[in-house]
Amino acid sequence: MTVTAQTAVVGVTGYAGAELARLLLRHPRLKSTPPVFAGRIDEKDKARGGIPLGEIHPELANNNGTAKLHLQLFSWELLKERGVEVLFLATPHEQSRVWVPEALGRGIRVIDLSGAWRLQEPANRAIYGFEDDGSESARATQTQAVYGMPELHRERIAVARLVANPGCYATSIILALKPLVDAELIDLGHGIVCDAKSGVSGAGKAPTAKTHFMHAADNLSAYAVFTHRHTGELLEQIGLKAEDVVFTPHLLPIPRGILSTIYVKFSEAQTREQIGKAYRDFFRRSPMVRIYDKVLPQIQYSLHSGYADIGFQLSSDGRRAVVVSCLDNLMKGAASQAVQNLNVMQGWGEAEGLE
Amino acid sequence: MTVTAQTAVVGVTGYAGAELARLLLRHPRLKSTPPVFAGRIDEKDKARGGIPLGEIHPELANNNGTAKLHLQLFSWELLKERGVEVLFLATPHEQSRVWVPEALGRGIRVIDLSGAWRLQEPANRAIYGFEDDGSESARATQTQAVYGMPELHRERIAVARLVANPGCYATSIILALKPLVDAELIDLGHGIVCDAKSGVSGAGKAPTAKTHFMHAADNLSAYAVFTHRHTGELLEQIGLKAEDVVFTPHLLPIPRGILSTIYVKFSEAQTREQIGKAYRDFFRRSPMVRIYDKVLPQIQYSLHSGYADIGFQLSSDGRRAVVVSCLDNLMKGAASQAVQNLNVMQGWGEAEGLE
Amino acid sequence: MTVTAQTAVVGVTGYAGAELARLLLRHPRLKSTPPVFAGRIDEKDKARGGIPLGEIHPELANNNGTAKLHLQLFSWELLKERGVEVLFLATPHEQSRVWVPEALGRGIRVIDLSGAWRLQEPANRAIYGFEDDGSESARATQTQAVYGMPELHRERIAVARLVANPGCYATSIILALKPLVDAELIDLGHGIVCDAKSGVSGAGKAPTAKTHFMHAADNLSAYAVFTHRHTGELLEQIGLKAEDVVFTPHLLPIPRGILSTIYVKFSEAQTREQIGKAYRDFFRRSPMVRIYDKVLPQIQYSLHSGYADIGFQLSSDGRRAVVVSCLDNLMKGAASQAVQNLNVMQGWGEAEGLE
Amino acid sequence: MTVTAQTAVVGVTGYAGAELARLLLRHPRLKSTPPVFAGRIDEKDKARGGIPLGEIHPELANNNGTAKLHLQLFSWELLKERGVEVLFLATPHEQSRVWVPEALGRGIRVIDLSGAWRLQEPANRAIYGFEDDGSESARATQTQAVYGMPELHRERIAVARLVANPGCYATSIILALKPLVDAELIDLGHGIVCDAKSGVSGAGKAPTAKTHFMHAADNLSAYAVFTHRHTGELLEQIGLKAEDVVFTPHLLPIPRGILSTIYVKFSEAQTREQIGKAYRDFFRRSPMVRIYDKVLPQIQYSLHSGYADIGFQLSSDGRRAVVVSCLDNLMKGAASQAVQNLNVMQGWGEAEGLE
Repeated sequence: MTVTAQTAVVGVTGYAGAELARLLLRHPRLKSTPPVFAGRIDEKDKARGGIPLGEIHPELANNNGTAKLHLQLFSWELLKERGVEVLFLATPHEQSRVWVPEALGRGIRVIDLSGAWRLQEPANRAIYGFEDDGSESARATQTQAVYGMPELHRERIAVARLVANPGCYATSIILALKPLVDAELIDLGHGIVCDAKSGVSGAGKAPTAKTHFMHAADNLSAYAVFTHRHTGELLEQIGLKAEDVVFTPHLLPIPRGILSTIYVKFSEAQTREQIGKAYRDFFRRSPMVRIYDKVLPQIQYSLHSGYADIGFQLSSDGRRAVVVSCLDNLMKGAASQAVQNLNVMQGWGEAEGLE
Repeated sequence: MTVTAQTAVVGVTGYAGAELARLLLRHPRLKSTPPVFAGRIDEKDKARGGIPLGEIHPELANNNGTAKLHLQLFSWELLKERGVEVLFLATPHEQSRVWVPEALGRGIRVIDLSGAWRLQEPANRAIYGFEDDGSESARATQTQAVYGMPELHRERIAVARLVANPGCYATSIILALKPLVDAELIDLGHGIVCDAKSGVSGAGKAPTAKTHFMHAADNLSAYAVFTHRHTGELLEQIGLKAEDVVFTPHLLPIPRGILSTIYVKFSEAQTREQIGKAYRDFFRRSPMVRIYDKVLPQIQYSLHSGYADIGFQLSSDGRRAVVVSCLDNLMKGAASQAVQNLNVMQGWGEAEGLE
Repeated sequence: MTVTAQTAVVGVTGYAGAELARLLLRHPRLKSTPPVFAGRIDEKDKARGGIPLGEIHPELANNNGTAKLHLQLFSWELLKERGVEVLFLATPHEQSRVWVPEALGRGIRVIDLSGAWRLQEPANRAIYGFEDDGSESARATQTQAVYGMPELHRERIAVARLVANPGCYATSIILALKPLVDAELIDLGHGIVCDAKSGVSGAGKAPTAKTHFMHAADNLSAYAVFTHRHTGELLEQIGLKAEDVVFTPHLLPIPRGILSTIYVKFSEAQTREQIGKAYRDFFRRSPMVRIYDKVLPQIQYSLHSGYADIGFQLSSDGRRAVVVSCLDNLMKGAASQAVQNLNVMQGWGEAEGLE
Repeated sequence: MTVTAQTAVVGVTGYAGAELARLLLRHPRLKSTPPVFAGRIDEKDKARGGIPLGEIHPELANNNGTAKLHLQLFSWELLKERGVEVLFLATPHEQSRVWVPEALGRGIRVIDLSGAWRLQEPANRAIYGFEDDGSESARATQTQAVYGMPELHRERIAVARLVANPGCYATSIILALKPLVDAELIDLGHGIVCDAKSGVSGAGKAPTAKTHFMHAADNLSAYAVFTHRHTGELLEQIGLKAEDVVFTPHLLPIPRGILSTIYVKFSEAQTREQIGKAYRDFFRRSPMVRIYDKVLPQIQYSLHSGYADIGFQLSSDGRRAVVVSCLDNLMKGAASQAVQNLNVMQGWGEAEGLE
């Protein structure tokens, strides 16, 4: 266990990167070692020592420390000079495919928020949408990658060189299903339906027809039906076959938050207590998951927090359940889960800086 | 077939009632015979000849005709005096239980927008939440009631004395499933999942913790899981057993619109063309249903319109489908369906005043 | 007065163009002569006879007529062939600068929704943001242009060859101020403050950082302070000097609607009745303006309607007033005002197709 | 200066109370002494030791400390027993009128978030809407009250027994105007216009027609024109006469945040630097105010933060300015300002627990 760590963030201009910056800047272990923010900047900004963080995200500006932080021009030399030990990549997966092996080669541990290294199966990587070049380097890197969900892989994350931070939808669904599948309660032959809804920040910062206010507001739309690229994570992490699960994402007219409504059939009738126990046993050591007993979670409850919230309702015959799983897609679905991984990698309290 | 009809509306102060007023006021057949608006008003308003419609709904005020319309004190005498032939009740179901038999006894045809007379099975009425007094009058009234979905019961509606206008969620789901069930394509044993999402107007005009902006905005919540009172309509109209279907409603942070995502498994693999044909055959004579081929419908497409929009996506093996069904809950889910029923009852074009 | 008119619309892909299409398609005078929709389309779409309107705007698709309408490749030959008498241009002002003279030269009357021809003063055109080439053609065209606000210029519009349809903010403010300025009630030396707020559709269909849901939602921002390009319309139409008025637009987190809060000081104390009379006298012949007596208008009241709504509150000493002016920026602020102009140009009822 | 303090909060069920709880629970000085939460609870809840905070506000529940906190039945004995030194009242002003003298009599310092003790002038209290009973006790209490805006009254707050926490609109406007008025830059005779817009949380938690989602969403409305109860705070704190200022509040369709657009005329032409200097000088010691140079603040920038953000734009002749002032009405407009006051009263860093 270390007292502190020097971190760096690439991709602070995006939504997840901004949340990550906010979390790292207020993390009690990192008070004296704020992260290095690096990325592409032009000559003029380089000449003035980088872009002040408050110009990029006015909501991050404060009247003392943060005001002095800058987004600097990225170089491996900068990272070496600043003694960076852990690198967060909040970058497109294409960039992470290239930079992660380089960082590992330089002895820097990486927490990659993209989908570049989450998937072990080539078929699932193909669904995700990138070519696997089949190189030795790529294979070696993939072998080192640990799926960054502490609730499932805490021990492996603690010693990992490369943590592949999970997708937002995937986090929401895996946390809801894994305990029930592991406890062998679900009749998989019957099929699982995952109807998920996400706020617009999940679609990224690029202005597109889809993210235009006029399309997103006062609307709801399903997309990527049967083809969403997070599907592979569900299959690999829960241990499901493609024909066992249908996953449909929807675009909600809200800035952030995911609610997944998940439909399962049990092999045998269950009681509320039995299902509650299955969840509680599974998450016994997990400070960032909340199980709901009396009400169902709603998106508001976990907004701006690092929690995943899970609740459920049984049919009167105890044979079917509707599980409701909520989280903030920029937090437990991205930035706070990355910090949670940092905590585990450094041997700190898993919830430090997150409550 | 008649040239026009004298209508009356009770319940114009609510959201569905306001839409109904708007539709009837611009209906080409009713230009010269605007509806009588009646309800509870106090003495002071009675003394001034009723409440101007524009005071209740400023958006209904215009600079000529409408400005002169008033909400008058309800009495059966008023209806008789004005020669009302068709009465719309946009009232709570408790009130409709009492008024409908009275209206029928007076020879007035009724289109009831409440849930009072939609359900033939006592068990389903119990789920809806009202006591069936078992009286002869109630039984006789129920027998006359026709479920007011022209796409299913056009011929019976044409001659009905009492039309029970469907629920909003029910309309959205029944139109999506009935064609597939009737064509015997669905493997019912596998179960059908209906994940439905509705705008806040569906929760009614009463200010409650649930309809407070601070709860409804930037949020999504599931409610009435396994217990929603529209379930009975699904069972009776589609012909399903309770264990065959799970229906989960959600409260969307938008004023109006429903999107239902419906998951079915087919007995045999299907092609896109086969499913499209099943829908098109079923709705051949139905002007207010639109089948989508190239894209999935979204909530925005049917807002403020009388259409129900249906689209679907098949899994690659053709064994499963996700059906997306959208409508405006205040229009096809309430007021425009009521006008559609009026058109059918009067022998007018089914889409008159709705396009 | 003519029975009908053959119209054409260029720019139906934008928000105002879509509203215009909707209005023209349901206009009682144009039932048998739907507008020609023309614009830039590619070879493939040309080959299939144009792009079905329902593909561009699914909410415009219906199950009969509209489904057959197409966006065709624009050419002057097409317009001639189809006998177009009135051309609506919902195009960028740069395009309108070029096309309007051409259309006029071909004997086609034009209603231009852009800012290309609204301003008589070169200085105001400069503020609007376009180079005045000073050509004879431009000068001649400008001379023919009538500012398309029937409440101010009804008689001139009736015989105009070119109607320059007003800006949305400008409409909202001019209608609120012109009656008070004309009645010489306002102490102009004291300055007039116009604090205006508009929904996002006013910012256009192009996806930008500003129109991204994440920026527009849960936010409010002022922009173009002291520099908004609609300022020139206020000055020319109301007859104000630049130093007499401050106009600040804000971006509201809603799809559509404008509310302008306008602060004036009177030369002498006024009563509620006096101000009400000033408005009522001015708008005596204007069916599309509603004056509010008992409450202030809100954005919701005029949404999706062709009305401008005006209300006001006086200070206790009668020396100052806050005027609240609301309209739907895509309707009275664009499309419905264009249709109102069409009605006036054709000698039809000014409100036809708008109530 | 004290190391810590025992606090109590009455009114945790409301929006400001919930924010206050969140801030106090994460305040570094209060880690070991969480506040006592007290209020009205029924017998059943009393019997189980109070209502768990997580039942009232699920978003406040976490997996360790907070889960054990309860809302207990209020009594002065409870406060004494727990050694409460500072009492926060997030209660209706009627209740604060009664409880504040009682608390002061018991030697407890009070930070009152209501409007009960903000106003020194009886006339302004009358505008606020409460009867001044004229009692000796009320007069004595009022004399002790310090208006809780540290930027104006830091020294007096440090030693105050009773701090009257400012209104949200008032905070937004006073911070923007006070520096300019004190520097004698403004031509008061010309009048100041304050056009303010607030999110719905400002209207309180009670479900009303006004706070119903259907009214608040997709809308904007002005209210309390010339009569808003925060006006008195503006007059007393800035030192203005009623005829010098017009203040119009509007209800924004967002959960939280205030943006005030303020229009002033200067006695003499000013430069951007001069105005910037006036603000910077005034707020030299104020960590919770941010002055914007390059852009105007927007509501998003200060959401969920304790900052007030101020920016401005000058007319080209330097004679007029539009000042834009933003804050989160539940934070700097209520809860974080209360914590800021606590910090000042305790001699802690003014920004502790707020950045």
